Amino acid sequence: MKNDLDALMLEKDLDAILITGPGQHNPDMVYMTGGCNLTNADLIKKRGEQAVLFYSPIERDEAARSGLKTKNLAEYNLTELINQTNGDYLKALVKRYQMMLAELGVTSGKVALYGQSDIGTNYAVFSALQQELPGLSLVGEISNSALMLARMTKDETEIERIRRMGKITTQVVGLVADFITSHSVKHGVMVKPDGVPLTIGDVKRRINLWLAERGAENPEGTIFAIGRDAGVPHSSGNPDDPLKLGQTIVFDIYPCESGGGYFYDFTRTWCLGFAPDDVLTLYETVLSAYNIITTQLEVGKPFNHYQEMICELFSSQGHPTIKEDSQTQQGYVHSLGHGIGLNVHERPWSGIKSDDKDYLVPGVVFTVEPGLYYPDKGMGVRLENSLWVRPDGKMEVLVDYPMDLVLPVKNE
Amino acid sequence: MKNDLDALMLEKDLDAILITGPGQHNPDMVYMTGGCNLTNADLIKKRGEQAVLFYSPIERDEAARSGLKTKNLAEYNLTELINQTNGDYLKALVKRYQMMLAELGVTSGKVALYGQSDIGTNYAVFSALQQELPGLSLVGEISNSALMLARMTKDETEIERIRRMGKITTQVVGLVADFITSHSVKHGVMVKPDGVPLTIGDVKRRINLWLAERGAENPEGTIFAIGRDAGVPHSSGNPDDPLKLGQTIVFDIYPCESGGGYFYDFTRTWCLGFAPDDVLTLYETVLSAYNIITTQLEVGKPFNHYQEMICELFSSQGHPTIKEDSQTQQGYVHSLGHGIGLNVHERPWSGIKSDDKDYLVPGVVFTVEPGLYYPDKGMGVRLENSLWVRPDGKMEVLVDYPMDLVLPVKNE
Repeated sequence: MKNDLDALMLEKDLDAILITGPGQHNPDMVYMTGGCNLTNADLIKKRGEQAVLFYSPIERDEAARSGLKTKNLAEYNLTELINQTNGDYLKALVKRYQMMLAELGVTSGKVALYGQSDIGTNYAVFSALQQELPGLSLVGEISNSALMLARMTKDETEIERIRRMGKITTQVVGLVADFITSHSVKHGVMVKPDGVPLTIGDVKRRINLWLAERGAENPEGTIFAIGRDAGVPHSSGNPDDPLKLGQTIVFDIYPCESGGGYFYDFTRTWCLGFAPDDVLTLYETVLSAYNIITTQLEVGKPFNHYQEMICELFSSQGHPTIKEDSQTQQGYVHSLGHGIGLNVHERPWSGIKSDDKDYLVPGVVFTVEPGLYYPDKGMGVRLENSLWVRPDGKMEVLVDYPMDLVLPVKNE
Repeated sequence: MKNDLDALMLEKDLDAILITGPGQHNPDMVYMTGGCNLTNADLIKKRGEQAVLFYSPIERDEAARSGLKTKNLAEYNLTELINQTNGDYLKALVKRYQMMLAELGVTSGKVALYGQSDIGTNYAVFSALQQELPGLSLVGEISNSALMLARMTKDETEIERIRRMGKITTQVVGLVADFITSHSVKHGVMVKPDGVPLTIGDVKRRINLWLAERGAENPEGTIFAIGRDAGVPHSSGNPDDPLKLGQTIVFDIYPCESGGGYFYDFTRTWCLGFAPDDVLTLYETVLSAYNIITTQLEVGKPFNHYQEMICELFSSQGHPTIKEDSQTQQGYVHSLGHGIGLNVHERPWSGIKSDDKDYLVPGVVFTVEPGLYYPDKGMGVRLENSLWVRPDGKMEVLVDYPMDLVLPVKNE
């Protein structure tokens, strides 16, 4: 949680953190500011001190909304710095950072860099800044960052925001089910009143509309993939594909609050009208694995323990898994889940990126999403809910929604 | 344009470019791939050779949509690399990049880094990669990047995509005008049928909905700011503010294609019902400046020439400008315009970032957006269109829309 940040900085021997980039769709910046509509800004927090938000003067009202201590970037007069450096924009930016850091008394020690922004520009700027300030050590942290660790456990306000997104998500999923099944069937395909097949593109347009109506954004798109595409976990689906009966549809939806706030993550697998035997068997295997895993989840355990468990389970049932063959494209091919928050994928990790920080401790919000994929057989099944480890150590699915495979349709 | 890229790489002595990050909302990646729904990917292009897209195997279908040469990241077996490095994830990632670069024969020379992604992680990875590969020089380019320069001039397909977004934008602006003026007035404020004031929040929710209906996204939000807030260029507006008659409303809207494609950028200033004399005068000054500047625009001229011109114009009319005082918050406080494309702000620049590359050459799409701001007097006016320098050298406003200040409302 945010109030762990100073302790985490101390643990990682960080004297300050520096976040750069836009005010929205920039998780670390949104975390610290609450999400202001800033084109580009910098936030510097010295350990044990308040964060300071540096803003462009035309965005002073937006910066003020953060409630943080703010500083006007115009005070460092970039135009003048560009003149001083004979028109070298890079040197001027570096000089400005030197002034900003000096003003906050960040003159030695370790400073961690954060932000969703242009990596080339920032590589140049911070490499040059490092050269100018040999007494400071600028560092990037790989996945194991102090901010990511603070963000891994959520307070009640964050839980309610995620749950609210979950309610919007499941409302939209219900609308999609109703929308699809309100159509007629012709020659095994859902058709519109004019007899033209209903397509994945038609469904996706509705999804975006219904999300927008509820004030949500869908920056990463939606997976709505049928048949063979459902057998490839991150195939988002071909917009022109018609909705055929009896084929697996993997529907994975992960919208966020407007402006790039908290995400939800949710998957169901549907078959329209009926499920062929092999699909039904695959679905029952995945559902059973979901139930076994979620029943076994225990507070304080490492998340990757359950990745091991599900690999063994699927293996024992004769499915290939990435545990034995990291390159398999059949069977169980991804990790069991991941944290969600201001990123749709964040800590805790359950897969190869996980380390000794990835425990299911109170405040953690994470997905459980077992799946089995057989693209050559034209089918894939994934079932996913988002869970919260409550302060009392119990696991709670944030929003309930039926797990049913078959969506009944009108008879042909 | 894209086919200038090899020449631009040669000019900048780049042997290769490397783009990392997600497949969407990542302008350089979208430019090269066409915009695939990839969680994270790498693209490497050696000068004079085809680009290669490295993808995660669960996203192989999405990667294939790019039509590029692709390579499966699983072939480098990250799990095995993590074992080899005794669990050091950073070292394993660095090792994987070494293998990827070696495979494409990028073993010496200069490699430029691009991508909208996590700057901390990438700073760590590329700093460590640089240490491992002293024969290679990894560089970040500040604003003047080869890709940004290629992207600065658009081909006809890009122009049509931007124009299409412009049509959607102006349709929505028209709907907003109709929506507001369909309301009644009570005590100088627009009210809903139940007598409750119509607010900026009400208007913004409609904007997002109408954009979503048309398949557009609004990742950077909308500026719809009234009165004093209209006097602060990037104040996005307070959602709870009621719409009062006779106050300036700065309405700046900049949506993009779904998935983070091409943007449009458009601003009008409105007064509901009537305009007080001082507002009318300010509006006429800005409109006249817009007309003067757009009449003078000439193909081949540096864009910042017109920034000089408008500063002189406003100065001669008694307005403070950032030319004399870079810190002024009254009068003319920003630059005249900027390029638009896969970024809402890109080259050419007209302000302090501009250099000898920022010319109005054929294919350039740019905004002209003069504005005058007096927050202490509770008013601000900005007028903005997006223009295209056609192959014949003529300047064309991509989509027309009336410049009117006053939106007539029903009598009280």
